[in-house]
Amino acid sequence: MSQRKIVIIGGSAAGAKAAARARRLDQSAAITIIQKDPDLSMASCGYPYYIGGAFDNREALLATPTGVVRDPRFFHKTKNINAMVKTECIEIRRGSKEVVCRNLTDGKTFSLHYDVLALCLGAVAKPLPIPGSGLKGVTPLLSMADTDYLHQACAKTVKHCVIVGGGYIGVEACEAMLARGISVTLVEMEERILTMLDDQLARLVENHLKSKGAEIITGTKLETVIGKEDRVTGVMFGDGTTLACDVVITATGVAPNIRLAVDAGLAIGDLGGIEVNEHMQTSDEAIYAAGDCVECTNILTGNKVLAPLGDIANLQGRVMGENMALGNRRTFPGITQTAICKVADFGAGVSGLTEQEAIRQGFTDIETVINASPDKPGFMGAGLLVSKMLIDRSSEKILGYQCVGTGDVSRQLATAAMAVRAGLRLNELISLDLPYAPPYSLAIDHFIATAHIMQNTLEGRLTTVTAEEVYTRYKEGTLPFLLDARGADEFEVLRLGIGEKYIPLGILRDRLDELPQDKTAEIICYCKISLRGYEAALVLKANGWSNVKVLEGGIMAWPYPREL
Amino acid sequence: MSQRKIVIIGGSAAGAKAAARARRLDQSAAITIIQKDPDLSMASCGYPYYIGGAFDNREALLATPTGVVRDPRFFHKTKNINAMVKTECIEIRRGSKEVVCRNLTDGKTFSLHYDVLALCLGAVAKPLPIPGSGLKGVTPLLSMADTDYLHQACAKTVKHCVIVGGGYIGVEACEAMLARGISVTLVEMEERILTMLDDQLARLVENHLKSKGAEIITGTKLETVIGKEDRVTGVMFGDGTTLACDVVITATGVAPNIRLAVDAGLAIGDLGGIEVNEHMQTSDEAIYAAGDCVECTNILTGNKVLAPLGDIANLQGRVMGENMALGNRRTFPGITQTAICKVADFGAGVSGLTEQEAIRQGFTDIETVINASPDKPGFMGAGLLVSKMLIDRSSEKILGYQCVGTGDVSRQLATAAMAVRAGLRLNELISLDLPYAPPYSLAIDHFIATAHIMQNTLEGRLTTVTAEEVYTRYKEGTLPFLLDARGADEFEVLRLGIGEKYIPLGILRDRLDELPQDKTAEIICYCKISLRGYEAALVLKANGWSNVKVLEGGIMAWPYPREL
Repeated sequence: MSQRKIVIIGGSAAGAKAAARARRLDQSAAITIIQKDPDLSMASCGYPYYIGGAFDNREALLATPTGVVRDPRFFHKTKNINAMVKTECIEIRRGSKEVVCRNLTDGKTFSLHYDVLALCLGAVAKPLPIPGSGLKGVTPLLSMADTDYLHQACAKTVKHCVIVGGGYIGVEACEAMLARGISVTLVEMEERILTMLDDQLARLVENHLKSKGAEIITGTKLETVIGKEDRVTGVMFGDGTTLACDVVITATGVAPNIRLAVDAGLAIGDLGGIEVNEHMQTSDEAIYAAGDCVECTNILTGNKVLAPLGDIANLQGRVMGENMALGNRRTFPGITQTAICKVADFGAGVSGLTEQEAIRQGFTDIETVINASPDKPGFMGAGLLVSKMLIDRSSEKILGYQCVGTGDVSRQLATAAMAVRAGLRLNELISLDLPYAPPYSLAIDHFIATAHIMQNTLEGRLTTVTAEEVYTRYKEGTLPFLLDARGADEFEVLRLGIGEKYIPLGILRDRLDELPQDKTAEIICYCKISLRGYEAALVLKANGWSNVKVLEGGIMAWPYPREL
Repeated sequence: MSQRKIVIIGGSAAGAKAAARARRLDQSAAITIIQKDPDLSMASCGYPYYIGGAFDNREALLATPTGVVRDPRFFHKTKNINAMVKTECIEIRRGSKEVVCRNLTDGKTFSLHYDVLALCLGAVAKPLPIPGSGLKGVTPLLSMADTDYLHQACAKTVKHCVIVGGGYIGVEACEAMLARGISVTLVEMEERILTMLDDQLARLVENHLKSKGAEIITGTKLETVIGKEDRVTGVMFGDGTTLACDVVITATGVAPNIRLAVDAGLAIGDLGGIEVNEHMQTSDEAIYAAGDCVECTNILTGNKVLAPLGDIANLQGRVMGENMALGNRRTFPGITQTAICKVADFGAGVSGLTEQEAIRQGFTDIETVINASPDKPGFMGAGLLVSKMLIDRSSEKILGYQCVGTGDVSRQLATAAMAVRAGLRLNELISLDLPYAPPYSLAIDHFIATAHIMQNTLEGRLTTVTAEEVYTRYKEGTLPFLLDARGADEFEVLRLGIGEKYIPLGILRDRLDELPQDKTAEIICYCKISLRGYEAALVLKANGWSNVKVLEGGIMAWPYPREL
C-alpha cells in the first residue's frame, strides 16, 4: 500500500486532534498540518483566564499536561506529524488534489498533494461595523495574538475597558477585567446579556456581574469608537454621551471561516458554515471539515446550528481523523448544544433548548418550571442554584435545562446533558440514583427536585407564575394578592417590597381571615425558594380558595429590585 | 370521605419525607409520625462532618435550609403533621389495623388506628462480636446520640481513635478524626478498605488516607477491646499486640431494622430486609415500607440489594407518601447503586457494577479500562481523576463506573450515573456533548476520554495490563520488558523503580535498537497516565513488535510503592 497523504488545514483544536487520531490509527501515513498562526493546539478557551491573571505562564496555553509545548518539533518527534506553522493555505485545487500554500516568513508558495484533506479553518470575529473600530486598542478576543496584546495591556496600562457584546466571550472577558481590577463597561445591543439563556436566568447572572462591580448597559448600541491619533480613547453612544476607555474588546460573535471552502466550490449551509455529513465529509468526498467552520446538527430538532465550541471541535476532529485514516467508519451524532461559562462566582449554562429557542423552533406543547435551591446542605457551605427545566408535554421528554448560581452548576449541567442526550422522560427523572453525600449534594439532588416541581406542575397541583409576569403586573398596577410565607427574620433581611402580605407558613392556618374573602380571588404565594410557597398554596386550596398560584423560584430567583 | 389515617413509624429520612409528601397531596388526612429518637428529620449523613468540626451548630443537622428546627412543633405548625418523638412502636396489630406505642418519657402505652401504615425503621449497627465491645467509649456512628457523644469526646479528650471497618462510614469517620487532629488507626478485616470499589481504585484511596496521617491496618481482625474499669483503654489484635486508644468507632456495617416487621409476620427478603413491591408496599397491602429497612432492586441485574443511603430513602419515601395518600399510582424503579464519599482531599465513588461485583453476578463477557487524567487544564488548577469503566462486550452498554481522586469526582459520577441509568452504549459515550469550559473540565471530558480508551481496547488497538498483574509479576520475578515513555524531568521526580527501561516517546523511533530484538517478546509501555504509553505501543507495533501492551492508568494509577 502506498503511503496515504493526509493534509490538514488548521492546527488548533479540531485539526490537531484529527492529526493525532489519524496517526494513532495509521503509523505509515504522511500527515501534514498547515497552520497560519505561529502556535499549535492552543487552549483558546483558556485565553480569558490568562488575561485575567488566573495564571502567568503563557506556555501553559500551548503545552501538554506535562508541560511540553506542542510546537512543530513536538509534533514531529512524538507523533511523526509534519506541522508547518506560519504557513497559509491560499488555494485548494480539487481536480489535482493539491493545496497551494504560502510560507508567511519568506513569502514563497508551494503546493502539496493530498489523498484526503481536512479543513479546520475555525471562526473569524464579526467586525464591529462602526466608525473607529480600526483604532489601536480595539480588539476581539479570539487569537493568541489578541490574548498576548490584552494580557500585556491589562497587566500594565489599562484603566477602563469597554466590552461590546454580552455572550460567553463578553462575560468571560468581563470577569477577566474585574479580576485585574480594571473598571469595565459591558455594552449589549439586546435587552439583556447571555441571550443563549432565557430571560430570568440571564438577568440573575447580570445582577451578579453588577454586584461584582461591572457596569452593564443593555439595549444600547455604540455609535462610534473615539480615538486620538490612532489609539482608542473612548466610545460614543447613540445619544451622544461618551465614555473614556483604553481598550475596547469586541465580542459580538464569530462566523465560520469559509473563504477557502467557498473558493473551492464546496457546499455551504444556510447558516454560513461548511456543510458536512455525519462522517464529517464535505460535498467533496476527499475533503473533510470539522470545528468552528462547519454546521452541526442539533439532535433534538434535527436542524442545523453553529456551535463554535472547543469540546465539539475536538470530538469532531477525532471522528474525522479516524475516517480520514481508515475510511468512513465513524459518525458524529450531533449535539445538544450544551455549554457552560464561569461568570465571577457564578456558573451559568444550558443543555438542550431554552424556552425562547423551543418556541422559535415551533414547539408548542411545552412546560417549564424554575427551581431555586441550595446545591448541598447549608452546614457544608451551600451555594445557590437556580434552574429552569423544559419538557415536552406529550412525550414528557426533557428538552432542555438551564442552571445559574454560585453552587455546583457544572454537575447540574452534566446531569442534564446526559438526560437530554438520552431523551429521558419525567418519570425517569423523579427517582434518579445520583451520587449523594453532604459535601456534594442534597439528599434529593437539585436536578431531581426540579423534576419533582415539574411533576407537580404537570399534574396540576402547582400552578406557577413567572417573576416577569408578577413584576410586569406590579408595574402596571394590577398585582393580585401576593403572600410571602417566610419566617420573620427572613422577611426582615430581604423582601420584594411591592405590596406583598407577609404571613409565615407556620401560622397561616390561624390567619386565613387576613386573606381575600372572595375565594375566587387570585393569590400568588412564595417564600425563599417557593417550597413553603407551594405548601401555603396547598393550604389555601384546601380551605376553598380556587385561584392560587406560586411564584417560580421564590425570592431567590427574583431578578428585579428587592428591598434589603 | 372520612379522614384517612396515615401512621408512619420512623421520622428520619424516608418517614419524614413520606409524611410531608402525603400532606401535600391530601390536606385532610390525619398524619402521625411515631419516632423513638428525640429528634426528627436528622441529616444523618452529615454526622461525620459535625464530629470533624466542619461546622459547630448542632441544630444545622436538624433544621430546614432557613434554619428552623424540624421539631414536633414545626411539623404541627407548617405541615399539620402530628409527630410524636420519644415514642416507640412496640407492636403492629394487622387484624385491627392498630399500632401499639409506648411513650418513652412516662412509660405509658397507647394504641393508634391506621388506614395505611408505613415502616421506616432504618438500620441498626452490626455489633462488634468480640469481648469488650460493651465498654464505654466503644460506639457506632449511626444515631444523633452517637454523634453527640463523639462530637463532645473528640473536641475535648480523645487523643487516639481506633475505627473498625473501612467502608464509607469508616473512612468518613477517619477523615473526621484527622480533621480534629486526632491520631487514628483504621482496622479492616478484608485485605483492603472500601470493598465497594475494585482493588486498584480502593488502594489509591487507602494511599491517600495514609498520606494524610491515618494508620490503616488491613487483613486484620481485632481480638478484644481492652478496658480499665468500664472504659476502653485500647484494643488487642490476634497476635497479641495491643494499641492504646480512647475511643473505638465500630463501622462494620448496618443491617435492616426489621424486628417489628418480623413480629407482625410481614415477608422478609433473603438479604434480611423487608420485602416491598414497586409501590413500596409490603406483603400486607395496608402496610408500606421504605428506607434502610427494605430491600431494593438493582436495575442492572434485577436482583435485590441492600442500599442504606439517605438519597434512596428520600426518593422511596416520596413515592410511598404519594401512594399512601392517593393509592398506588407511583412506582420506584430501583437503583443503580450510585454512591460517593469524601475522603480527605479525595472523592471516591461508584455507579453501577464494579468488576468484582459483575463477576459475582455471573457477567462473563465484560471489558474494563482504567483512565488516569486531570479533571481540567493544569493552568486552572487541575485535580487528578482515576476512573474505571465496565462495559458489556456484546451490547456495548455501560455497566459501571468508578472514580477516585482529587479532581471533580462528583461531576464524573453524576455523568456516569445517568449513562448507567439510561443504558447508554459505547457509541453514544464517545461523542457526548458535556458542559465544557476550562474552569470545569478538559475539552475532552475525562468521562468521554475513558470511553475513548474503552473503544480503542474493544477494537483491539490497545491491549492493556493491570497494575496488579504487573506488580504480581514483578514480585514473582517474571516481569517482561517494561518501557517508561515519559520525559526526563518526570522520570527524575517519580518512577516505578522495578527495573523499567526509560526511553521518552519523542526519541523512541531513534532508539528501537534498545528494545528486545525478539519481535515476539512481551513489552509493556506506560507514561504518567498512559496516553504516551499508548502512542509508544503503536510505534512499536508499527515496527514489528507483536506482543505490546499498555499499563492501565500509567504511573498515576499505580497503587503500589514508587520511587520518589
